[in-house]
Parts: sequence; C-alpha cells; structure tokens
Amino acid sequence: MAPVAPIGQPAAAIDTPALVVDLDAMERNIAAMADDARRRGLRLRPHAKTHKSAWIAAQQIAAGAVGVCVQKTGEAEALAAAGVDDIFISNEVIDAGKLARVAALACRCRLALAVDSALGIERLAAAMLCEPGATIAVFVEIDVGQGRCGADATQAGVLARAVADAGLSFAGLQAYHGRAQHLRSSAERAAAIGLAAERVRLAQAAIAAQGLACPLISGAGTGSFVHESESGLWGELQAGSYVFMDRDYADNAPTDGAPRFEHALFVKSQVISRSADRAIVDAGHKCHAIDSGLPGVWDAPELEFGNGGDEHGILRRRSVSARLPALGETVWLVPGHCDPTVNLHDALIGVRGGLARGVVERLIAVDARGRLT
Amino acid sequence: MAPVAPIGQPAAAIDTPALVVDLDAMERNIAAMADDARRRGLRLRPHAKTHKSAWIAAQQIAAGAVGVCVQKTGEAEALAAAGVDDIFISNEVIDAGKLARVAALACRCRLALAVDSALGIERLAAAMLCEPGATIAVFVEIDVGQGRCGADATQAGVLARAVADAGLSFAGLQAYHGRAQHLRSSAERAAAIGLAAERVRLAQAAIAAQGLACPLISGAGTGSFVHESESGLWGELQAGSYVFMDRDYADNAPTDGAPRFEHALFVKSQVISRSADRAIVDAGHKCHAIDSGLPGVWDAPELEFGNGGDEHGILRRRSVSARLPALGETVWLVPGHCDPTVNLHDALIGVRGGLARGVVERLIAVDARGRLT
Repeated sequence: MAPVAPIGQPAAAIDTPALVVDLDAMERNIAAMADDARRRGLRLRPHAKTHKSAWIAAQQIAAGAVGVCVQKTGEAEALAAAGVDDIFISNEVIDAGKLARVAALACRCRLALAVDSALGIERLAAAMLCEPGATIAVFVEIDVGQGRCGADATQAGVLARAVADAGLSFAGLQAYHGRAQHLRSSAERAAAIGLAAERVRLAQAAIAAQGLACPLISGAGTGSFVHESESGLWGELQAGSYVFMDRDYADNAPTDGAPRFEHALFVKSQVISRSADRAIVDAGHKCHAIDSGLPGVWDAPELEFGNGGDEHGILRRRSVSARLPALGETVWLVPGHCDPTVNLHDALIGVRGGLARGVVERLIAVDARGRLT
Repeated sequence: MAPVAPIGQPAAAIDTPALVVDLDAMERNIAAMADDARRRGLRLRPHAKTHKSAWIAAQQIAAGAVGVCVQKTGEAEALAAAGVDDIFISNEVIDAGKLARVAALACRCRLALAVDSALGIERLAAAMLCEPGATIAVFVEIDVGQGRCGADATQAGVLARAVADAGLSFAGLQAYHGRAQHLRSSAERAAAIGLAAERVRLAQAAIAAQGLACPLISGAGTGSFVHESESGLWGELQAGSYVFMDRDYADNAPTDGAPRFEHALFVKSQVISRSADRAIVDAGHKCHAIDSGLPGVWDAPELEFGNGGDEHGILRRRSVSARLPALGETVWLVPGHCDPTVNLHDALIGVRGGLARGVVERLIAVDARGRLT
C-alpha cells in the first residue's frame, strides 16, 4: 500500500515517515548529468537500481540517456512492463530458469546482459535458442578492482570468443568499480580508476588477440565517472546515484570538472517522543538503509542522528546551543545510501517548490521495489 | 510481486534470492515460547514487527498468545484487515491524523497504544471522542534503559493520572529494553534487566501515589525475557525474534532456563560468479538487513560472507581446506537481523522437511511489509 500522498496539498500534509523527492533538485541533477555526458561525447545509461522507477527512467531518457542499467532480471521485467525499452542487466545470470526469463524479455525490449563465465555464456545461448528472432547484447564483465563479479582481464578474449562462437552478439566490456565511488579524495578515486583502466587495456588486448572488435566499454559511477571519461576508454557511463545523491556521496571531496549534484531524496519524519536531551523521530532503518552509515539531518548540522533501531531515530544536540526539535515537529533526513533506501518504499512522493513550503505534485511508483530475482 | 514459490515442489526449485522459512523449526519455536510463558504463568504477546504476517500471528495465537504487538499504526491496520483481533501498538503516536486512524481501528479490533507525553494523551483522547463506543487500552511507556522513547519512571504517576482524567483506560506500563537483548553474556543481560526492574518499581510507586492501580507490566524480548520473568514484575512478554532467530541472537551466550530456539529464517542464494578465491552469491543487502552484521553461511562455518553491496555477497574460505561452492550452487544464509530482513520481502516461502530435501508448502504473505506510517 502506498503512503499517503495528498496531491496538490502542502508537503506539510505528508504522513510520516515517507520518502520524498525534491522534483526541482532531481530535474537539475538529471539535466546536469545529461549535459556533462553530452559535452564529453559519451553515452549515458543511468543505473536504475537507484530509483527502480520507470517514470524517473523516462525523465532520464528524455534528457538524453540511451536507456538504463539494472542489476536483476526482475527489475528489468518490471521496468520493461512499465515502458522502458532499452535495458542492460549489468550483472551475471546463471540459473537456467532465469535465463529463460531473460530470453523472453529480449523479445519485448532492447536488452543486454553481462557474463563472466563459460557456463553463463553456454546457458544464455541455450536460452536464446528457445526465442528465435530475439537478440541480446552480451558484455563480458571484467574485475577492475572491486573484487566481486567479473573475470580476470586476461580472460576477456577467451570469453568474448566464446560469446561469438555461441552465436551471440559480443557488445563489449562491463567494467564497473563500485568501491572506487566512495573513496573520499578525488586523488584516491583517480588512482583506483587508473588501475581499472589498465585492466580494461589488458582486456582489450586479449580481445584483439582473438581477432574480435570490442565495440564499447560500459561502466563508471557517480563518484568516479570524470576519471573514467578522461581515460578515453569508457564509451558509456552507468552513474545512478547522481539523480538523488545521499549522505555518503556528499561525504566525498568533490572532483574537478564534475557537476555538483544536489540532495533530492529525503525522509520526512516526525518527533514522537521528547525528553530534555533527545528527540525521537519515527524513522529507523526499516525506512532508510544504513549500510553506508546513518542519515544526516537536513538543514540542521547541529543535530546528530543516532541509531534508534528499526523504527526510531535518536536526535541529540552536537552543542549545548543547538535547538532540539519539539514533540510533533517535522524533521527532514538525508539517507546514508539512496539505492537500498528507495527499495524500502512502494512509492516516492514528488514535491515541487522545496521541502518546507512545497506542494505534492506526484506519486512516483517504485516499480521494481523488491524485485530481487 | 511475490517471488516464485512452486507449492509442492522441492525447495531446490525456489528461485533466488528468496526468504525461506523452515516451517518445522518455526513451529517448534512457537511451541517452545508458548510453553515457557505458560509454565511461568505469564501472558505472551509476541511482537509482530518481526514477521509482519497475519498467518504467523494466527499460529502464535493458536499456541496460546493473547494477541500481538506492532510498532506502527499501518502494521496494526494491515494485520487487523487480515484477521488479527488483539493488537498493542507498543509505540507512541503523536500526529492527529494518525491518531484518527488509531481510533477508527479501535472500532474494529481490541487495541492498545503506548503514550509517554501529556500531548500524546490529550490528542489520543480527542481522537477517541470522534469514535463513540470505541475503547483503547493505554500503556504509559517508561524508559527502562534503552534511552529511546518512554518517560522518566518518576513521571509515570502523572501520566497515568492524565490518562485516567482524559477518560481513557490506563492499562499499565510499557517497559521494554531493546538494547539489553543483544548484550552477549547472560550476566550482562540480567544486570540490565535488574536496572529496568528498579525503574518499573519506581514507576509503580509513582502510580500508586496517584491512587491508581497498575494492572500490567508489558515488555521483554527474546534475549532477556527470562530475567523479566524472574523479576516477578512483568506480566506480559513481547518477545518477537524467537519465531525465526537470526545470526545476531545466535551470537548471544545462552540464558539458563531459556528454551533453545532454532534458526527458522534463511535466504536462499546462488553462486553467480566464481573465481579461485571467491564465490559471489546473488544476495546482498537489498535482500537481508545488515544493521546487526552480515549473514552467516548455514551449515558451512568454514565460509565467510563478505559485504558485496546491495545485490551481492562475497564468500571466501576461512581456511585453505574449506570448499568454496561452485558456479550455480545454492548457498543458504542466516540473516544478521530477522525483523528488517522480513520487511524487504513481499512473501516468505514456507518449506516443510528441511532446507536441503524439503518441499514448498505455502507462501506466507508479509501483510505489513513497508507499512511504515
């Protein structure tokens, strides 16, 4: 069931806790990223695992994005059903039943998938045989420093050859370094992407040695895309979090030449208990993800948010002069990490005109919420 | 959309990732807790914030529970709509609009609410006036050491008097110490509950000084309820996690005289990427909550689960002799914390006969998932 979203009413009327999008800020973020990619001559394929929303994907595509990425087959199905027609599942699928769903989806939209094993390629090819006429673009994922999925760069040639020999379309490399996004200094992020670029070059050489072309390198995120761009290797950017930003990204030192994205995603909460030294709000970690740390308090850096468990937050003063909000007062929070926070909500409430005096303009369905498989 | 749950098929056919309940283990947990409370002569009102499921609540009530607790008005509405008829919202509600929902719900089921402020009592009384004939039991919450919601124990008398003077029914004290559940040794938990008991006695004295009776002390959780029971003060136990258990509770040293509850909640995951030193599974923290630490690997203590972000887990060997699962292999995980993990899923898949060779018996709706307000 969706939260109460009184369209046309003031933001003050939104029941708490609720996940609220500042539409003006989000639109500025979408435009800034699209302009930046255009200026660099790069394709932009924002990661929809951040927002899981077909409506937001449509705004990104209208601004110039070529399509979106997702991490799960179920996310791709949900977004395709809601009208998104160009989707890259930038992750591995191994289960034969799930690959049958991938193949079926390839009949309904433009689709791409990442692979990093001979078994994955073999099973994908078998699944695609059951959907004659359907095509899928296949990216070989290499590990560029994350230490998660992805083959060793030296294996990229063998895997690209296996893709081609299986009658599939080899589309290039998936080269994404998630951990690099959250290194705090720009120099650290540049160094990590420098190492990633070396692995991409190794992979390109291995692919060339197989006599194959490598059409595209896809990857990069909000924290590092300037560095991938400047390497001259990546042709497609997968940044996702820029659309909302979060407390964790705001903790990064800025990168020269990168747009300054704004916080556009907020938890509206209310003080439900108050004592002399603390104010308890009705938003805990069933409402905002804390994997990247606790939320910040918007517009009140003098207040510290303490972990109050699943359903509560504990606000305390950082200094004796700070004002603690009163019982019943609204407190706006900036989530630590936007992607898993959005996944906790059925809908986002879009506000126009600012948080304090804005008006509820729309309810944005989180179409792929909980689409885990 | 619910995950694929092939009723009547082997557990091996469950698509991943999925949240799976070992029904045999859950039923043993439900019976053990009910027997224990009966033996101690205490009422059992399990906390449904753990499972958010009317069907599981019904199993607990059939085994002897008097009803359930929840933390949110929306949870109460969802469970009442699905047939649960005795609910205690063991948390504060301050918003007038939400209190109108509480009052409306009091017409449809037996309902209780916690208060810890004069404003909360005043607004509740105003809301109840709009529903003539409806009644609600009101518990005054005191802070027994958690440092979250709850008035100072010395204020309990004044608040109980305000409840009575507002024409509401004063039902007793809400006295729950969440943090005490996770102190690792039984001695530490006993000491924390000893201090909580002192505050309860202070509150009882303050209530008696107002010339009021204090009908019931409600509280206690899975980690500490033996200590609350043995104090002779608490008359109602609110334990919730016992139904599933989790990795965090299993890390507690056992308490003398407490039943040994079993792990009954598991994430079924699959290896989707494999290299020499790691196996990547398709379950990250969009699938299991990590606020209380990472999941354990079931039946394979020689494997360590590393944080792979929103959608992945990174399994590594703890010793060179350990066997790393192969590409495509199933890996069962024990979530770090059951409550927020359940909240990530639309349904639980109930398996009978064990994880490895069991059969899918039922899909259990998580009726109150995402009911945050």
